[in-house]
Amino acid sequence: MNRKILMIPGPTEVSEDVRDEIAKPVIPHYGSEWIAIYRETIGLLKEVFRTAGDVFVLVGSSSAAMEASIMSVVEPGDKVLVELSGMFGVRFKEIVEAQLGKVVPLIVKPGNCVDPEDARDLLEQDQKIKAMTVVHNETSTGVTNPVRELGEIAEEHKLLYIVDAVSSLGGIELRTDDWNIDFCITGSQKCLETPPGLAMMSVSDRAWKAMENRREPIRGWYLNLQNIRRYCNMWADWHPHGPATMATSLFRGLRLALRKILDEGLENRFERHRRVAMGMRAAVRGMGLEPFVRDEIASNTLTSVKIPQGVKAADLLKVMEDEHGIIIAGGVGPTAGEIFRVGHMGGTSSASYVIPTVSSLEKSLRKLGYPVQLDSGVKAAESILGQTQL
Amino acid sequence: MNRKILMIPGPTEVSEDVRDEIAKPVIPHYGSEWIAIYRETIGLLKEVFRTAGDVFVLVGSSSAAMEASIMSVVEPGDKVLVELSGMFGVRFKEIVEAQLGKVVPLIVKPGNCVDPEDARDLLEQDQKIKAMTVVHNETSTGVTNPVRELGEIAEEHKLLYIVDAVSSLGGIELRTDDWNIDFCITGSQKCLETPPGLAMMSVSDRAWKAMENRREPIRGWYLNLQNIRRYCNMWADWHPHGPATMATSLFRGLRLALRKILDEGLENRFERHRRVAMGMRAAVRGMGLEPFVRDEIASNTLTSVKIPQGVKAADLLKVMEDEHGIIIAGGVGPTAGEIFRVGHMGGTSSASYVIPTVSSLEKSLRKLGYPVQLDSGVKAAESILGQTQL
Repeated sequence: MNRKILMIPGPTEVSEDVRDEIAKPVIPHYGSEWIAIYRETIGLLKEVFRTAGDVFVLVGSSSAAMEASIMSVVEPGDKVLVELSGMFGVRFKEIVEAQLGKVVPLIVKPGNCVDPEDARDLLEQDQKIKAMTVVHNETSTGVTNPVRELGEIAEEHKLLYIVDAVSSLGGIELRTDDWNIDFCITGSQKCLETPPGLAMMSVSDRAWKAMENRREPIRGWYLNLQNIRRYCNMWADWHPHGPATMATSLFRGLRLALRKILDEGLENRFERHRRVAMGMRAAVRGMGLEPFVRDEIASNTLTSVKIPQGVKAADLLKVMEDEHGIIIAGGVGPTAGEIFRVGHMGGTSSASYVIPTVSSLEKSLRKLGYPVQLDSGVKAAESILGQTQL
Repeated sequence: MNRKILMIPGPTEVSEDVRDEIAKPVIPHYGSEWIAIYRETIGLLKEVFRTAGDVFVLVGSSSAAMEASIMSVVEPGDKVLVELSGMFGVRFKEIVEAQLGKVVPLIVKPGNCVDPEDARDLLEQDQKIKAMTVVHNETSTGVTNPVRELGEIAEEHKLLYIVDAVSSLGGIELRTDDWNIDFCITGSQKCLETPPGLAMMSVSDRAWKAMENRREPIRGWYLNLQNIRRYCNMWADWHPHGPATMATSLFRGLRLALRKILDEGLENRFERHRRVAMGMRAAVRGMGLEPFVRDEIASNTLTSVKIPQGVKAADLLKVMEDEHGIIIAGGVGPTAGEIFRVGHMGGTSSASYVIPTVSSLEKSLRKLGYPVQLDSGVKAAESILGQTQL
């Protein structure tokens, strides 16, 4: 293998045609050629988000879009229910606090998902909560949170509902409008199979109304959605994406990636990710290892695994990378040193990536003194993935 | 010509090797390979900025870095002297106001540069001004502002000095430390010859001290330099660039572009840009047209030209693009319809780009009924550029 393969929870592998598209000569971020590319891409994004609302593309990491949502509706002192099932839940907490909002924490034990009843209890105890944030797919632990159920609760309690779908959108089912999501946030570098650098977000009519009803103006310019929308309208026929220079090269790559995603079909993708995750978990058990997360809430885009006794996480990552050319991830925060994580997201959600990864894991663990029978993981994965057309 | 050439004031043409570098398989934004790339690039940027201070790379447009500087030192009610020599001066005004700062405007007639004595007068009238913003090279009009002289005034008055060097850095002389610049801001897509998507900025010790002395915390997370620095330190050996995912593909392209820029040498680049701009202005006069800006303050990275009577700007742009495959720019804001603008920035600051552009301008103007003698512009440009090794 000439280069290293990314079996991490993002950034993910990007296909050669998308990379070639990005490598084409640069185009301007204004004028008729750009407007056509921009409009097509926004249309494709609306299909992927399953929204009839507005969709924006920001030059920035997904955290920029997380902040754009929070700063637009959270004013100083406003209470926000923030679930803390992992590192990106904690990021929402930091962002809400940076905007002087008051965090009402929903504590979740690492490896568990949010229990909707816990959210309901907190909301019944405190009628003044204005918004709720949820990370759909917590890559730090490998858990998928119940975004649909929490959306029903958000609707009951008239909350603004903010969902980080960074590592789920395009790989795990999500319905922005049907699930009452006011801000849905994602990034280019996960299931959308484009290099990092672009953040995409939907904004509902209810969210726009909440912005109109603010007590004071949004503090900020670059991530201020009202400001962005004002420029989008003012410059619609020339520079339709907002006031700032767009990353046009990455954007063209995103367009091609989205076309391919919709050609495959969202439902087909969700099923592919589901099967591959099942195969990966079977492989984990086949090797005598233990998944960190129970199957019912385990993510379909990555699998987190308890590090077996006697093996150091850092050693496993190093052998996998140096001897097999496969980059996997360790734990972060409370799970550092306790788990390893394998991404199977977008293009790598496939037997052709997962089986060699499992085979390399078998050899790496043996080298580190952990007794794995060769092919035990591969055979278990094949018992699931052999039945699919991957 | 198979594709369109960008002779606009950015984004600029990006060389094939830099585009190929960006098209390589994606790498993670953490770990040892990334840390080496990151550290080398920051070192190269410090050379280009001519600073011993801190340099950060943000995923965002240059406007994001403009706001990062303003929000870090401008608190509600703080007064900021903002020069308004063009559209990007006005952008600083909007950003200061979005952060609830009070703008003290320094009005400049379009096509003129800031007169340092006007700045001094305003500062003497109002002792409470805390910061000053200047756009080094105003692409909307084609003027270069006296950043060095204004830096001396900033020093005298103990102002925080914020410079937009988006379309100058790497093409026109700028010395961050020697010129007392506290925040120097640039983007990837101008003289640094990389596609759009990254913003780079320096931060002085004086700026950090001003942040420590704030009355209230910075409102924000993604563009909060104190927050970014905290993560850079906390994650120095793993994820050294801040809390968010870096656009690693663009970043690798930037590294290669910076290596090439420093191989050419900054002084050589400044001289090249100066000569090419002289050649372009000679061509303008050779064709019987009139530069919009007097030579002493004209930009070296673009040339703005008055539209001759009887010609419509939109028609000229269209003929240039459709028949000659060369994209030039019109005026914006107060100069819309009054001028056209030709970028000669980075790689296109070269006779091999400017001479064909001039030749195409001659033919386009003739087609639109304006009497230009064929080769009149080309010969005038060659009288300057023939003497150089381009």
